[in-house]
Amino acid sequence: MAIPSDLDISRSAQLQPMTDVAAQLGIGEHLLEPYGRNVAKISLDAVEELADRPRARYVVVSAITPTPLGEGKTTTTVGLGQALNHIGKRSTVAVRQPSMGPTFGIKGGAAGGGYSQVVPMESLNLHLTGDMHAVTAAHNLLAAMVDNHLHKGNELGLDPHKITWRRVLDVNDRDLRNIISGLGGKQDGAPRQSGFDITAASEVMAVLALSTSLQDLRKRLGRIVVGYTTDGDPVTAEQLKAAGAMAVIMREALKPNLMQTTENTPVLVHAGPFGNIAHGNSSIVADLVASRCTDYLITEAGFGADMGAERFFNIKCRTSGLQPDAAVLVATVRALKAHSGRYKVVAGKPLPPELLAEGPEDVLAGADNLRKQIDNIRLHGVSPVVAINAFPTDHPSEHEAIRQVAEAEGARVAVSNHFTEGGPGGAELAEAVAEAAEEPSGFQVLYPDEADLRTKIETIATKVYGADGVSYAPAAARALDSYEANGYGELPVCIAKTHLSLSSDPGLLGAPTGWTLPVREVRASVGAGFVYPICGDMRTMPGLGSRPAAESIDLDDQGNITGLS
Amino acid sequence: MAIPSDLDISRSAQLQPMTDVAAQLGIGEHLLEPYGRNVAKISLDAVEELADRPRARYVVVSAITPTPLGEGKTTTTVGLGQALNHIGKRSTVAVRQPSMGPTFGIKGGAAGGGYSQVVPMESLNLHLTGDMHAVTAAHNLLAAMVDNHLHKGNELGLDPHKITWRRVLDVNDRDLRNIISGLGGKQDGAPRQSGFDITAASEVMAVLALSTSLQDLRKRLGRIVVGYTTDGDPVTAEQLKAAGAMAVIMREALKPNLMQTTENTPVLVHAGPFGNIAHGNSSIVADLVASRCTDYLITEAGFGADMGAERFFNIKCRTSGLQPDAAVLVATVRALKAHSGRYKVVAGKPLPPELLAEGPEDVLAGADNLRKQIDNIRLHGVSPVVAINAFPTDHPSEHEAIRQVAEAEGARVAVSNHFTEGGPGGAELAEAVAEAAEEPSGFQVLYPDEADLRTKIETIATKVYGADGVSYAPAAARALDSYEANGYGELPVCIAKTHLSLSSDPGLLGAPTGWTLPVREVRASVGAGFVYPICGDMRTMPGLGSRPAAESIDLDDQGNITGLS
Repeated sequence: MAIPSDLDISRSAQLQPMTDVAAQLGIGEHLLEPYGRNVAKISLDAVEELADRPRARYVVVSAITPTPLGEGKTTTTVGLGQALNHIGKRSTVAVRQPSMGPTFGIKGGAAGGGYSQVVPMESLNLHLTGDMHAVTAAHNLLAAMVDNHLHKGNELGLDPHKITWRRVLDVNDRDLRNIISGLGGKQDGAPRQSGFDITAASEVMAVLALSTSLQDLRKRLGRIVVGYTTDGDPVTAEQLKAAGAMAVIMREALKPNLMQTTENTPVLVHAGPFGNIAHGNSSIVADLVASRCTDYLITEAGFGADMGAERFFNIKCRTSGLQPDAAVLVATVRALKAHSGRYKVVAGKPLPPELLAEGPEDVLAGADNLRKQIDNIRLHGVSPVVAINAFPTDHPSEHEAIRQVAEAEGARVAVSNHFTEGGPGGAELAEAVAEAAEEPSGFQVLYPDEADLRTKIETIATKVYGADGVSYAPAAARALDSYEANGYGELPVCIAKTHLSLSSDPGLLGAPTGWTLPVREVRASVGAGFVYPICGDMRTMPGLGSRPAAESIDLDDQGNITGLS
Repeated sequence: MAIPSDLDISRSAQLQPMTDVAAQLGIGEHLLEPYGRNVAKISLDAVEELADRPRARYVVVSAITPTPLGEGKTTTTVGLGQALNHIGKRSTVAVRQPSMGPTFGIKGGAAGGGYSQVVPMESLNLHLTGDMHAVTAAHNLLAAMVDNHLHKGNELGLDPHKITWRRVLDVNDRDLRNIISGLGGKQDGAPRQSGFDITAASEVMAVLALSTSLQDLRKRLGRIVVGYTTDGDPVTAEQLKAAGAMAVIMREALKPNLMQTTENTPVLVHAGPFGNIAHGNSSIVADLVASRCTDYLITEAGFGADMGAERFFNIKCRTSGLQPDAAVLVATVRALKAHSGRYKVVAGKPLPPELLAEGPEDVLAGADNLRKQIDNIRLHGVSPVVAINAFPTDHPSEHEAIRQVAEAEGARVAVSNHFTEGGPGGAELAEAVAEAAEEPSGFQVLYPDEADLRTKIETIATKVYGADGVSYAPAAARALDSYEANGYGELPVCIAKTHLSLSSDPGLLGAPTGWTLPVREVRASVGAGFVYPICGDMRTMPGLGSRPAAESIDLDDQGNITGLS
């Protein structure tokens, strides 16, 4: 079943004019700001103008714990949107903007794939409308103002050893992880150990994703904590007088970007926060707009349901006030087989041939992960729908095995062939999602704002991850105490752990029990609005591989892009 | 004569729809790619499509040697474009894109000023269409691939001590000038001394400005030299397989940006290379398009005529093949008085009150600078026009003094009040420029490609700067020998020296004689296509001041930008 390359499918798509795409949303030209021919920003006036319309059914797409290859969550999100339109339910898709670093690194682009893509994929995977670059610029202006403050007399008494604000760039560059800046003469600043993260890891990106309005963005930027005084008092972007200029830099970036799928389903692409040290969800502003536009709004949450969906419920929905009506769990045969512990799946290498042989018993052996992730959706009062993302190498008996497990849990389940067939291939999934979303939502957040930070962490660890409990390194305990004292205790928590296991150990597959979540350190994104305990090593600046994708990307004689995937 | 703030004037301008602005250029909608409502990119197809049209008169705006305050070159460029339209000569303006670093630093925006501005000034001074960000991204991808090449075995044998490719960011951040990167463990690269320049100083920016087509851009990026092997052989972006991906990142950035002035004169804003270590001129591609659109094309060259105009003639026009028809020299009373040596003008401080008193004799005492800069235009066979940029504090006798000097040199001269009156205030200047441009152009470059690098440097130093000769530090002499051996001898030279004097010493005002140009080192921008000898200390990463402009920039309650100037 050979299908053309993603780039070829993307190029052959018949794109609608953006005014027509917007018309599908009931959004008039006066709210549309074109960026090139195939992308437009939507004015923030839309939020107020559309507020009286009926609310769309709100569906989040999450997954079982993935292999390092990923299980096709974006593709399923896009395919489900197309499939709902195919069965006559008007729908909109909302996804994150891909990061350029990985596009030129190992990962390639992130526009979905096959016949379920966001197009044009070149725009999506490159600059789009410059929102990522705005985040980089705003973040680094604050960094320059921090060092300038030290250089010009340090009126606020910042302790140079307690500066937590690093710099960011949207490139995979391991050599920037740890640097000493400020070398040279006395006019060149003062030497200080620091480093760069990738732009997606910037707190400014999380602020962009979690702001509910321009005024809210301005306030959140002001609350960003860049470091502490020698007395341990936080110093903010507001105190440094940087937040106004940062908001000015971010003003256009807060407007969601409208694109379309290969089948002309409207797509809002907006913000791309990291999935481990941040909440890994597309923007609230895009959802506030799109939730008033069509019958269904389908959005994606990063990584497995223990990660992205948990943050979707407890951080994003808590902040936006939007209520989810259903949650899709993407499951693949290969991931469930991997959860059996019988096969090893490694990124960048072919799958083991034995894994591809018919083996429903392997699927069943890995099924505890699916059961636990279904439970994780239910914990929040939301109806789960298992989406079997079909691969050409799958066997019907294997799909049947997944179906049995899901149905035994009382969850809806459907096989989806959106990758090879587009919207029509996802019709069964669309029907199941529509049914689930029609049920009254019993949505609830997992913990109240008032719970203290340790309670929040322990609630997620035991109820969602299946841990016996939580242990805190001394530095982590000190940080929690200080955050409570500084008044950050009311923030939700965003636990940074591996996405490759329900536990904090990427080697533990299935649904591990009898383990304790080790919190190594705790940091706060006060502006974005969450505290993030870190369990294990979290890499916030990727590196390039031996053969970076960039080496294969070029222009042909006609100026078309080649090699982007 | 109080006039409203630049931001207020910009906001009150009655903007034309971009299709109407393009229609002034005879450019149809099919060549227009909108970016928001008030900016559009022009498709590169325009170059070929318009090639049969008559050529516009091509006018470069330069200046006498400026004070640290600048003498209003951009404002005059914009005002002249408006004034030509006012007297019935259709015209287009082409200027550089301002850098965001200085916008938030000491300088503020750079959109012209008063009633001669490019609008909307918020777009111009912030991201515009993201071209600057694309330069940053392409530049830093190459940097990451350089360090990754070292990390992955260094097949090409790059000498880590001979890597010349640094990183760039569009922010004023002194602490990034000198860094050690690659600290941490062995997975985090290898420690190496390096640093950041501001994006405007990137060779990729100069490539953007000097490319004549997308294919040419691709080739120039490939020729970029990132460093040398232990044997001294150059290593290029092509060898690192980075140039294709860099071209892909730069593909949209090569399309010129269309805006308009406060009086709806079309403006192409494109590329912003540094004026000292690069050639300081807006893009060739913009001029190739605009030179086929209206009766006149007015473009600006950075700094005084010894710097920007010399590079305009010998680098930009040599590369593009376009022939200039006239050159405007912006002169101000305050700068000529400063050239008398009797007053000290310092950036960020008020002018000395004595300088503001009526003093035509001070103007005459500084007039040697004007005479020499007139001569510098004539050296290239181009007709000079002296534009007296009038200030409210000027006295008629002082304007008359400038007029006398210019006329004694046989140059046309006009007083221009474009700042306070817009196009009508520049009518006299427009008439003078039109007359000058009607004369047959005797344009010639100052030296042939075949001359060796030392001859080129010495030609500029003695003929343009008025030096007795050139001295080379040992490292500079070695670099010149090695560049000649590597085949870079045919490139033009871009001498990096202070813009505050015709000489290399910023303290020498007027038209200094009896001095020798000291070349401290020599570097090559092989991809952009020039060799740059460095005379004195060139700062390629600015810092922030005690009260950065960013501190005053914010959003008001309606989301409008305040404090940007």
